[in-house]
Amino acid sequence: MQSIHRELFGPGPTNVPASVLKALSQPTIGHLDPEFLAIMDEVSQRLRHVFQTDNALTFVLSAPGSIGMEASFVNLLQPGDKVLICINGVFGGRMREICRRIGADVVTVENEWGTAVDLDALRTTLAEHPDTAVVAFVHAETSTGVRSDAKSIAALAREHGCLVVADCVTSLAGVELLVDEWGLDVVYSGSQKCLSCVPGLSPITLSPRAVDRIKGRSTPVQSWFCDISLLMSYYESGEKTRAYHHTAPVNSLYAINEALRLVVDETLQARWMRHSAAASHLYSRLEGAGLELLVEAEHRLAPLTLVRIPDGVDDAAIRRRLLDEENIEIGGGLGNFAGSAWRIGLMGQNATIERADTVADALLAVLK
Amino acid sequence: MQSIHRELFGPGPTNVPASVLKALSQPTIGHLDPEFLAIMDEVSQRLRHVFQTDNALTFVLSAPGSIGMEASFVNLLQPGDKVLICINGVFGGRMREICRRIGADVVTVENEWGTAVDLDALRTTLAEHPDTAVVAFVHAETSTGVRSDAKSIAALAREHGCLVVADCVTSLAGVELLVDEWGLDVVYSGSQKCLSCVPGLSPITLSPRAVDRIKGRSTPVQSWFCDISLLMSYYESGEKTRAYHHTAPVNSLYAINEALRLVVDETLQARWMRHSAAASHLYSRLEGAGLELLVEAEHRLAPLTLVRIPDGVDDAAIRRRLLDEENIEIGGGLGNFAGSAWRIGLMGQNATIERADTVADALLAVLK
Repeated sequence: MQSIHRELFGPGPTNVPASVLKALSQPTIGHLDPEFLAIMDEVSQRLRHVFQTDNALTFVLSAPGSIGMEASFVNLLQPGDKVLICINGVFGGRMREICRRIGADVVTVENEWGTAVDLDALRTTLAEHPDTAVVAFVHAETSTGVRSDAKSIAALAREHGCLVVADCVTSLAGVELLVDEWGLDVVYSGSQKCLSCVPGLSPITLSPRAVDRIKGRSTPVQSWFCDISLLMSYYESGEKTRAYHHTAPVNSLYAINEALRLVVDETLQARWMRHSAAASHLYSRLEGAGLELLVEAEHRLAPLTLVRIPDGVDDAAIRRRLLDEENIEIGGGLGNFAGSAWRIGLMGQNATIERADTVADALLAVLK
Repeated sequence: MQSIHRELFGPGPTNVPASVLKALSQPTIGHLDPEFLAIMDEVSQRLRHVFQTDNALTFVLSAPGSIGMEASFVNLLQPGDKVLICINGVFGGRMREICRRIGADVVTVENEWGTAVDLDALRTTLAEHPDTAVVAFVHAETSTGVRSDAKSIAALAREHGCLVVADCVTSLAGVELLVDEWGLDVVYSGSQKCLSCVPGLSPITLSPRAVDRIKGRSTPVQSWFCDISLLMSYYESGEKTRAYHHTAPVNSLYAINEALRLVVDETLQARWMRHSAAASHLYSRLEGAGLELLVEAEHRLAPLTLVRIPDGVDDAAIRRRLLDEENIEIGGGLGNFAGSAWRIGLMGQNATIERADTVADALLAVLK
């Protein structure tokens, strides 16, 4: 096939380092081969570091980030269980939709698009619903470029004895995330954002409290594919007792193992700082040119910046010109922001001052 | 990473051609990029040929073959719907498990392991359950190496007005499969078997009858990730209206597009013949050396051969020696056949006389 080169400044996937693509294309081996099981163990070990957790059950689901969301809820919730979902964008809305399909008793805290989860509203709602079992929120809303205060949300939820589910698709390895210290119980992510890996995988980690809840279920998990109790027998046990569940995407696991190695080598702190510095530079370039950022400074999500589309500017035409003339992809708005905002990602290997200049230069040029 | 070379003669994955691995490692582009949408269209077009179908809704699910099974049932069935499942191995049993979790009314036709689906038993059961909505079966049972008569099963089911679901994970592109001519309504497969692609994808096709049934549902599909009505808006519509559902595994799609190209270039008929010829050669090599095949000749599945483990032979030790000394993987038994049978695959690029000799030579040598 003819290969196409794009500079990926959208909401993900981002560009993938050559060493990750090289790992991806190594010869396929069996999903029960001892050599592959060793690779899976290495992936889990690196992932624990990147999640900042000691959770034994830390592994990679064999599908995109959306399956992380679905797996979290179908395992934790049984019909009738009360779940409180903080919604401030598309992905919180998707959480609600998934929980409804489970037959859960869904309570929501709705926040304006472009704002962070409101802690006072969460506190009030928790007090009104003392029987809430699970609190869920999106750490980094990919539809709005907002980072919510995961630490405080988790602390509130824990005060009320709830388990905490956090969507960290666009935060893992890009902004501070301390799973154990903050008390997050189920955290999932995607491979194609700040990890700079190919899309198609969903890293996930579950606390012992979450595992206990799953083990205590009285009804089967409605999804066989996402059933953590079945997956545990493949991901947690030793080589000899490892039980077949499904065929793991062997080559993609090679790739994420290399992507995780790069993160560990760089160190998490350096990587978070790099994302932050690149974003700050982008903010000044865009605001300096008179463009308006949609999110207030303190809640901005470094890996993904929302820019208001200036009046009279043709959204689709600008994005098409960037793509056709510069091979640059930026993201359109999603949900409430469709047509009114662009989403500019500086994720993984693209989170540098130079890359921020590349996308800013190109966007400002086509807007002239 | 250090790459490991294995000769993959197990139940899948099989070895992947260099051109497929090369396609896999091309630079990642966005999942909404017009160039990627063109690739998805090409994949669907080639897949229609390989499935031998005109079904508009023919695409690749973003997860391993197991998700094809789950997606088929959660979309076609609502709680209380009657489904008849023909079980003659692990994968038929998994179908039953998935359907139970949906709350469907599950009726089964149980067949002895190692035998094909019994048409008389199916006929009788259908007559006893005239309200059956869906008949499901496994065309190629990967746990037993049996090929069932898909054409006759489908004809019987259609006589009773039922929709037909066929698991073709280990038959697609390896043995004759004529989706439209046989009247199969939902057919799914896996990427890592006779397509000789990397594991992690599940090709699927749905007939207009199946789509109508899905559109007529009164309850939401219990899985958001597998909801075909949501997926349709991404896979079926034109570039301008294509709606985001999840992030497609872009690189894996490059790979399957190339794997499908190789199938189309070879022609389906030639590929089926090649699998058949390689299998026949393997049968004579193994039977000639006194080994016993588990399946009667007329029901054997060319891509996967079940061999009885001779008395007194240590199953695990033999497989470990093959792996350590020859870098050859064969499969252990699954389910009822664990410890009593080996599964030897000659799939995709490994379906040749020469490769059959490679695995037969090695196995017979370690058995000496």
